[in-house]
Formats: sequence, C-alpha cells, structure tokens
Amino acid sequence: MATRKSRAGAMALATPERVRTAELASHAGQRALLCGWLRGVRRLGAITFLIVRDGWGEAQAVATSAEELAPLEEAGAGLESVVAISGVATAAPQAPGGVELRDISVSVITPVRETPPLTLSKRELRAGQSALLDYAPVTNRHPRRRAAFALAASAMAGFRETLTARGFTEIQTPKIVAAATESGANVFRIDYFGREAFLAQSPQLYKQVMVGVFERVFEVGPVFRAEPHDTARHLNEYVSLDVELGFIEDHFTVMALLRDTLTGILARIAAERGAELALLGVDMPVVPAIIPHIHFSEAQELILRLHGVDTRGEPDLSPRDERWLGEWARAEHGSDFLYVTGYPMRKRPFYTHPDPQRPEYSNSFDLLFRGAELVSGGQRLHRYEDYVAALGARGLPLEPFTWYLEAFRYGMPPEGGFAIGLERLLAQLTGAPSVKLVTLFPRDISRLEP
Amino acid sequence: MATRKSRAGAMALATPERVRTAELASHAGQRALLCGWLRGVRRLGAITFLIVRDGWGEAQAVATSAEELAPLEEAGAGLESVVAISGVATAAPQAPGGVELRDISVSVITPVRETPPLTLSKRELRAGQSALLDYAPVTNRHPRRRAAFALAASAMAGFRETLTARGFTEIQTPKIVAAATESGANVFRIDYFGREAFLAQSPQLYKQVMVGVFERVFEVGPVFRAEPHDTARHLNEYVSLDVELGFIEDHFTVMALLRDTLTGILARIAAERGAELALLGVDMPVVPAIIPHIHFSEAQELILRLHGVDTRGEPDLSPRDERWLGEWARAEHGSDFLYVTGYPMRKRPFYTHPDPQRPEYSNSFDLLFRGAELVSGGQRLHRYEDYVAALGARGLPLEPFTWYLEAFRYGMPPEGGFAIGLERLLAQLTGAPSVKLVTLFPRDISRLEP
Repeated sequence: MATRKSRAGAMALATPERVRTAELASHAGQRALLCGWLRGVRRLGAITFLIVRDGWGEAQAVATSAEELAPLEEAGAGLESVVAISGVATAAPQAPGGVELRDISVSVITPVRETPPLTLSKRELRAGQSALLDYAPVTNRHPRRRAAFALAASAMAGFRETLTARGFTEIQTPKIVAAATESGANVFRIDYFGREAFLAQSPQLYKQVMVGVFERVFEVGPVFRAEPHDTARHLNEYVSLDVELGFIEDHFTVMALLRDTLTGILARIAAERGAELALLGVDMPVVPAIIPHIHFSEAQELILRLHGVDTRGEPDLSPRDERWLGEWARAEHGSDFLYVTGYPMRKRPFYTHPDPQRPEYSNSFDLLFRGAELVSGGQRLHRYEDYVAALGARGLPLEPFTWYLEAFRYGMPPEGGFAIGLERLLAQLTGAPSVKLVTLFPRDISRLEP
Repeated sequence: MATRKSRAGAMALATPERVRTAELASHAGQRALLCGWLRGVRRLGAITFLIVRDGWGEAQAVATSAEELAPLEEAGAGLESVVAISGVATAAPQAPGGVELRDISVSVITPVRETPPLTLSKRELRAGQSALLDYAPVTNRHPRRRAAFALAASAMAGFRETLTARGFTEIQTPKIVAAATESGANVFRIDYFGREAFLAQSPQLYKQVMVGVFERVFEVGPVFRAEPHDTARHLNEYVSLDVELGFIEDHFTVMALLRDTLTGILARIAAERGAELALLGVDMPVVPAIIPHIHFSEAQELILRLHGVDTRGEPDLSPRDERWLGEWARAEHGSDFLYVTGYPMRKRPFYTHPDPQRPEYSNSFDLLFRGAELVSGGQRLHRYEDYVAALGARGLPLEPFTWYLEAFRYGMPPEGGFAIGLERLLAQLTGAPSVKLVTLFPRDISRLEP
C-alpha cells in the first residue's frame, strides 16, 4: 500500500502543464499543453492549422513541418481524435482568442479513423432536426449546440443563486406519484411493484406542502407530460425550475420575485457565457424594473381593438394572441416581457386562488417572453376549507389528496409560486426553432433515443 | 392599469418590518414583526411563552396579559396556526437565540383548530417510522426532521460549488429511457405512447457521452431502482449526485476529485447549518488530505487476519465486511473514510475499466463512510473496440447501445466518474436509522404516498 499511497499523493486533476483552451492567452510566450478533440485540420500551403476543442472552448495549433504532423498520420487519426498538443503559446491576432500554439509536438490519445456521421468541423452544423437529434451524442459537440447547453447550466445556477440569496431552500420531491397532479390526462403510467403509479407532471403539490416546512422553496428537476403533440413547443420530459413561497400578499408578490429571478438568471448567463452568447448571436433582453402587466380581460379587449378579432369569452389565449400581446408590449412598453394576469378560474387547476373582487377570474399569471408563454404562476388557495370546497365544486374526490390537504389543515399562510420551463427559456433566448434543439436528449412522441 | 402599476411598484417580498427568527438578535431594542407557525405555547404562572417557527428557525414571544393572547382565543387558534407577532426584541439569555419579543401584539393569519396528528411542539418527535412518514407533510415541520432536509440543501449546493469551481458543467439528462442502463433487472417500466420504456437507473450512459461535449460534467437528479427490498439502506427513488470527467490517469484521479468534492460538501454544510448540526448532534467527519485506500484483495486478506473469516473468492463485500473495514480505517488511519479499490470485474458493469496489470480486477472503487458504502466510481472503458468486446463477452447485444457507442467511436479520452447517494450521505452523517427518514417523501416497495 505504501507505493500506492505515494502515488495518490502525486495525483492531480490537471497535470501542471495542461492549459485549457480558454486560458491559453494568459500563457503567451510560454510552452503550454492543450488536450482535447481535433475539431479541424486546415492546410494553407506548407502550413497546417489544427483546431483543438476541449471542455471550455477551442484553440489553434500551427504545424509547419511534416514531422510535426507525423503522429497523426501514423495513428491514422482523423477528425474528433483525442490529442495532446504542446507548443509555444504565441500571440496571433488572426487566431481565435488571439493566441495560437507554435513549434508543436502532437501526441494521439485516442485515434478516430472513421468519419463522423455529420460534419462537425464547419462553423454551422448543416443537417435537419432529425439528424441533429438522432446523432446527439456527436452533434452536441458542435460549438453552436454546446453553447446552448452551456447557457442552460448558467441559467440553472443563476436561478438557484437568486433564490438562495433570498432565503429559499432547495428541495427534491418524488417523481413517482400515486395520483396525477392536476388531472388524469397526459400522465405516464408506471408499473410500481404491480400497482399503478404515475410520473409527476410537476412538483406542484409537494412544493406547496414544503412551504409549511421552509416557507420558501425551489426545485430544479424533470417533469413528465404524456401530451401526444409533436410541436416545436412541447417536450414529453423537460426541466422545470419551480418556486413556491409563503406570506405573500397576492400573485403580485410572486410576480415581483419572478422578475428578480429572471434578472438573476440573465445576469449569470451574461457574466459566464459571453463567448456562447456572441457565437449564437443572442440579443439579450433587459428585464424592466417592473414588468408591465395586463389583465386577461383587458388583453382580450386590446386584441379586439388592435386586430379586430373578438376573443372575449375564450377562457385562454392562443399562441397568436400571445404573439400580438408580445408585439404590443414591445411597442407600448419597450419590454420583451409581459405579465398577463387574472386568467379565468374555469381553465386553471383546483388549487388556484380566485380574485377576491372578481371570483370568476384568478390571482394567477402567465409571463410572456417575446410573445410566447414562458412561466405560469399565481397565488394558491391556502385554507383547508377552501380546498375542500374547490375539489367538491370540480367533482374531484378528496381521498387522493388527503396527504396534501393535511398541510393546509395544519396551517398555511397565503402562498404562491411559479414554474419556468428551462428549455422554453433557452429556445426563446437563442431563437431556436424548437425546444427540442436546446435539449441534450429530447423526448417526444416518437423519440426515446438517444 | 395605472393603479395596478403603482401597486406593483410598492410590492416587496418582505414587508420592511418583518424579521426572520434567525435574525431577531440583530434587532434587539427595536420593534420587530415575526411571522410564522405557532409551534408551542407554554404557560408559567402569569407569563405565556409563544414559540414561533418560520422558514429559518424559531423564536420566542412573551405575553404577560390576557389581552395579548385574546386574538388567539377569539380565533380559536391552536398550535400550528399561522400568526404574526410584533413586539420589542429584548435580550434574554434564557431565550432561544438570546432574544425574545416582549410587549407583544398578536394577529392570526390562518387559525388551526384541530390538533395535529403527531405532537410537533416537543423537542423530540416521538413516533414510529411509519407514522413519521405517513404524516410527512406535517412531521417534516419538526425542527429535527427539517434540520436533515436543510443539510441536504447545503450538501447539493456544496457539491455544485466544488465542481463548478473546477470547470464542470451541469447537465440534465433524460429519466425516461429506451433501455435499462446496466441490466434488465430492477427497472421500472413505463407505458410510453404504447411502447415500453424504462425509468433511468442512473445517468451513467448520458453523463459519459457528455464527457465528449464538456469534458467535465455533473448532474443532481432522481434515479429509480425497482429493487424489491425493504431495508434501511434502500429507496426506490433517490437523489444521485453524479460526476464524470475526461483526461484522467486512472481511477485515482477520480478518487482525488471525490475527496475534494466531499470536503466541499461538508464545508458548505458546516458554514451554513451550524444550528442544524448542533440540534442533531452531528459529529462532523474530517476528510483526510488523502483518503486511505486498500485493494479489494488486500481487504479480504485483512478480514481473514483480523476476524478469522475467509471471504476470499467472494466477488463483493458484505455490509459486515464494510463495517469491519470501517473500524479498521478508524483504528489504523484515524479516518471515517476508506477507499476500497479494484473490485473484481465479474461483478462490475460492462463499462468498467479493468486493471491493466491484473485484468480480473477493475479500476473501480467504493468509498466507505463510517463503515458503509457511500459512493461507487471508477475508470470506464473509453475505446470503441473495448466496448464492443466487453458487450460481446457478456453476451449483451450492441443494438440498444448504438447511440451510446457513437460517443466512443468518435473519440473519447480516458474517463471516469462517481455517484454519491444523497440520502445515504445524510443518513450516515446524522446517524439516522434509515435513509427513508432523511428523505422528504420516500418511495419504498409499499409506500407511494405522501
């Protein structure tokens, strides 16, 4: 064991000389070692440029002799081979990042001798959506695709950071549940040791219960919707950024928190992902200090006035209505964001709190971002007797909700919350034509792999 | 809309005067407002102590007159009622936190008139495991139970913080999968639009693929095991803290990272949860700069020598063996942690990398914490041809793994990773008799609710 121990003592995650591509510029003038994937090889006369991609970006190495390239040739190592290239980091204005490796020595860690199914070495990844998704284990490596996933990581971090700073506690709630959350429709069924169980459509009931424990909670986790649609806006499994908090005045307290949360998410993305935002050409939105809001009924009047289409009486907004409202918010308020409040009670789930002044409308809201729904939220019922009445009025049995109702039976303050769909946020932000394209390995009605 | 707008402008998450219980001491001498749940009422002659619990802790308010208590009486508000109590924050050495509210004014936000199913007002929550879990929406409010959940939140934050600082990118991978990850056993089946699908037993295959994209990745998410056991160590759904990274030397690189990750988790818990650790009487472990390690075959020799039990030839360690090894690590190395390396290949999954020197043993490890397995990890195969051979040798078909194998076909560096079971970590840390007791809403063979 003694030799093993001394060896463990010498272990280091990064060997001293290895430099990440993103940090190469700070080593200008020194010998440095890059490790990564051979993304591109470009020959210009006697000079060959090798593009190396690692976990943080890419950099260029320059070969001026056949000897320098010999290890690649000998191994038959083509594009996507894993390589280590040492050389002198040299300032070069025309190189990506302003620095390149010269006087290089190449070694092949894992040779790739087959041509990847799609060309990763070009600036754009030219392929249809199916091919992009079928080959996701490989296409996700392309800088433009990985940029979106890098934004996702920062979005989650910004979400948690904002809420933690405001006294929220992170929770993890079960995804296998005994009853469907909001309705029996659109739910995946599981065989649970011979019993029927379901995949949670949202952590709604659990996060509400946890307001009784931590008062302010959040969760980042998968939710499952067995919706048989195949559209650019739907996934059958997606990541939900859930929030719930107690001691609110009404849904406007929740809307103020959501405003701050979005600001925190976008600030973290801006701080950490400048290169990715530039690569994707993202036009970063500014969240107004107060996001404009319009009541559902006023929104319908506005649509009638501006577009001559009478949607009054409809219990919900259509995607077209949302687009029109987004245009109006842009023109009237200079805002990419718009709250629509007070959706009719009859289309909202049983736990929705009515507007005390106009009980046919709810204390709920949707947040439109660039004319599409991004977040739903609102105030919930918090009195036990209100729940009993609400379930009764909808003809729903109390029994499946017994455990949930206990939380209200034994004291709950006025409370509310919201849920942000991570993939919708990314799709809207990056202008992706489908939420599937900003999901690592999307699930839709016909796609279970990869 | 004008009035709504001005109102939105006045919105604030916390009304200026509201003070969290945990911050009351810093308001000594001032009037302050506490909001929360009425956890206890204690009468001492003419004086009545009201204990208020909020999202961050608890504090005491002192009533010296019947008038002060009248609002509770009038509302019939008993324990767990939601109340707001204003008063003068006054230094009082005997009060929890060294400060209490005096000269108080009470208002009832949500009265509770029924007695909770279990007594929450005592220091200990006296009930059997079933009752604790059956009434989790209420029992989770008890300070001793919520303390464990607060530790969980800090553990997740410490995990992410440590890895993010080391250049890791967070990912979210699908939980609905087309094929069982490691074997067909112990997997939950789903009806996916008429096709059979499964719940992911781990993000193993996806996190490996993502090494090709971000090189270093982590995920915090649910995993699902249809194990028909009902023990103190098993859950059918639990939270896995998953890590995978490329460009390793071998499993010792992974072990060094795991050491740092555990240090980061424990440091974050210690920094944020002093009160909870004290309440639970946690004996915080110290992670040695180098965690001692012993090869599987040496561990069996040691057990024979120390305990006279010959386990040589067994392909795995039993819980008793792990306990003995934990005692040995404590006595010999003064360590709560011990790595056992080199488990026999025949019990490890197909992606396990063999020890190049002794191919019947693997480059894998388990981490024992206080004599019980907490983490599994190791080096994985990274060459396409090795995967094809490994699947073939086990008689497994290639077809279900086609998408996964693409990642190796198109270049992967030597790589490895680990997975920490969050609930096991908490159970071992707090000395809980079962992982179920440190899970918000556990799932076991007979428990699907709450």
